[in-house]
Amino acid sequence: MSFELHPQLAADTHRVSETDDCLLLVMNDRQYPWFIVVPKVEATTEWHHLDPDQQTRVHGFCVSVGQAIQSVFGSRKINTAALGNIVSQLHIHVIGRTPDDPAWPGPVWGAQPPLPLSDADVETRTLMMKQYLGADNH
Amino acid sequence: MSFELHPQLAADTHRVSETDDCLLLVMNDRQYPWFIVVPKVEATTEWHHLDPDQQTRVHGFCVSVGQAIQSVFGSRKINTAALGNIVSQLHIHVIGRTPDDPAWPGPVWGAQPPLPLSDADVETRTLMMKQYLGADNH
Repeated sequence: MSFELHPQLAADTHRVSETDDCLLLVMNDRQYPWFIVVPKVEATTEWHHLDPDQQTRVHGFCVSVGQAIQSVFGSRKINTAALGNIVSQLHIHVIGRTPDDPAWPGPVWGAQPPLPLSDADVETRTLMMKQYLGADNH
Repeated sequence: MSFELHPQLAADTHRVSETDDCLLLVMNDRQYPWFIVVPKVEATTEWHHLDPDQQTRVHGFCVSVGQAIQSVFGSRKINTAALGNIVSQLHIHVIGRTPDDPAWPGPVWGAQPPLPLSDADVETRTLMMKQYLGADNH
């Protein structure tokens, strides 16, 4: 068996880029800069299912994504979360938050119906993040 | 200046244990096994404010706490999240979730008013977690 992205995550996102260990996706919601990191390891639902080196690499990538979001979008605060109560495949939300976003200061999940990204939004968010994250992303 | 726990975090929790890098607290809410890891680094609000070695150690401790919660409390899913929109001092929630908890499958923040732990609950949760996490915790 090999890694496959859960169909619900595929339906809710667009693909931004990929490292050796992770997929980077952007949530199809223009209300927040909302990205999702998915470790490319099959049958993984918890952080402790990854070995310690994978944990370090995947978490390091999530931290880089958060730093990129704060630089690119000027977010006040980064929210980083692995929840997975509905889609159990391990995936980490990395979201830029500002006091004028519609869920502030509460969490984003379930707060507002999503407002889809336009094709131009997807292209812009993808380009900005790839540029900031550098050559390891393809 | 030195590290000081934010007064709101102190008010909402009890102290469980401490490592060289982190405080482990238990949220004063008996509806979930809900723990909070606070890196003992002053003026830190984002993961990327820690240096890479600190990130690895602190995240590794959060993963151990999640694994301990799943073993001790039999949780179906671990939720791990650094939010900090209200209390910006970096703190990581590590929460055991089950389908019969009052917020399932939504996130816990703001879902239900907290139901305080009894003194006996605090003692039991502290002892169980310290026993599982081992000798590095004091």
